[in-house]
Amino acid sequence: MKKVIFFGQKGSYSEKAMFEAQKICDFLDYEIESSSYIDEIIQEVGNSPDSVGILPVENSIEGIVRETVDKLIQADNSVKIFQEIVLPISHCLINKTGKIEDVKVVLSHPQALAQCSGYIKNLGNKYGYIVKKQTSVSTSEAVRLLDNYDDSYAAIANSEAANIYNKKIVDIGINDEADNKTRFICIGKKTTQKTGNDKTSFAFTTQNKSGALLDVLDILRQNKINMSHIDSRPSKKVLGEYIFCVDIDGHIDDICIKSSLEEIKKRVNYYRFFGSYSIKDIAG
Amino acid sequence: MKKVIFFGQKGSYSEKAMFEAQKICDFLDYEIESSSYIDEIIQEVGNSPDSVGILPVENSIEGIVRETVDKLIQADNSVKIFQEIVLPISHCLINKTGKIEDVKVVLSHPQALAQCSGYIKNLGNKYGYIVKKQTSVSTSEAVRLLDNYDDSYAAIANSEAANIYNKKIVDIGINDEADNKTRFICIGKKTTQKTGNDKTSFAFTTQNKSGALLDVLDILRQNKINMSHIDSRPSKKVLGEYIFCVDIDGHIDDICIKSSLEEIKKRVNYYRFFGSYSIKDIAG
Repeated sequence: MKKVIFFGQKGSYSEKAMFEAQKICDFLDYEIESSSYIDEIIQEVGNSPDSVGILPVENSIEGIVRETVDKLIQADNSVKIFQEIVLPISHCLINKTGKIEDVKVVLSHPQALAQCSGYIKNLGNKYGYIVKKQTSVSTSEAVRLLDNYDDSYAAIANSEAANIYNKKIVDIGINDEADNKTRFICIGKKTTQKTGNDKTSFAFTTQNKSGALLDVLDILRQNKINMSHIDSRPSKKVLGEYIFCVDIDGHIDDICIKSSLEEIKKRVNYYRFFGSYSIKDIAG
Repeated sequence: MKKVIFFGQKGSYSEKAMFEAQKICDFLDYEIESSSYIDEIIQEVGNSPDSVGILPVENSIEGIVRETVDKLIQADNSVKIFQEIVLPISHCLINKTGKIEDVKVVLSHPQALAQCSGYIKNLGNKYGYIVKKQTSVSTSEAVRLLDNYDDSYAAIANSEAANIYNKKIVDIGINDEADNKTRFICIGKKTTQKTGNDKTSFAFTTQNKSGALLDVLDILRQNKINMSHIDSRPSKKVLGEYIFCVDIDGHIDDICIKSSLEEIKKRVNYYRFFGSYSIKDIAG
């Protein structure tokens, strides 16, 4: 059974990203599922020849979604990124009563809580109390969970989630920075064609000696390849040992990219190719 | 009034780091304060000629403490790092009853919750329920807050915090990865002397053109300077625009470091020098 599994519940931002991806990728007839666990989605995609997953990977305010990156590093090498979708993010405060003065606890995914932390800090000031934060596995799950709590609980999610779970929107556009976007990735075992607007992602660890990372990056520089992003994740073994995650412009089918990555592979201790894929940006 | 302000409450890991720093830095006679807000500590240090702050900056499992890095970037340029302390981290599960079967909600700082997420996921399995996670501003604050909740709440913190707040230790060494360390920084307006075991940290943004980052890093490579860490934080303005945070081996009083950083300054849009400082690693 061919499946597409998006992160969160019905009404999540990842579901929105999936709808966008369906317009350009060939999985319109796939069975749709959702999961609140990033690691489960990546594992299921790894165990199936055809299934695809839709996951958030980076937010313009908070940075990379660490769990997505860390689990992708640990996943089977056959799991690759085949499409990127960029969505605008506009968070709403949602509860059961529609009254802002009822809100004493705010429930959401840690990234959404972080993106609205200034708003939450100010929320109780007017009424003389401190509003608490409680984490949920996704933004949509936070809205769904409101039924389990009393009227002092509110959720942060998008407006669709309020409609789906019959809750009230108390406030809109509550993210601390107005220009809030999230990158989502589509993962699976599909191969991609060069489109001319592509990006290639890979990860590596260098030998633990002076200048090793700079020597690797110099291969890109010498071949005039643009590195659009570099991030480091802890090896989780030794403090100060990192896995570097790099995005470059271009597709693995470009001869220059292919040969540069072959050269890099020879110089590193660990190498993981995440894929070459095109970008659909609907955040403008 | 000369003050040292550590992050969290009495019994926090940052207080431990402060005790270590007091042995080597000259602030033994300073008045001791604590604060649960990283931004407040950085601001207070910025507003005072003498005060110093002690903050967590990176954990070996979860990576950098984003709030510390982001607020340090925004802080007054006069606020610098003058010492680094590395501590081993061993988390305990702490509650009021001492009975593990009472635990239905676990309260702690988001980084501690993340470092024990596998443990928490398994915690309720034996008794057939899902243990919830709730965030607190620090690990020590989580223990202090237990008095406000019923017996279903537990905190994750170090064993000292359990003693200070008269709570029971239910389980020890609960972090998912045994080799868990955290780097703490001492910030203030002190100048530092070269010790021979120093590190220099700075941040910058490059011009938004192909190869700009690699051109900057090449200055380090050409001068045989070792880059021990690079991380990127979102500019928070445009998705895909980053502030790069770099650690290099050596002290700003080394001629080679000084001239390389002068060269880098000329090539970047934004430059922030965080300081040159020595490292005390008591994690072994």
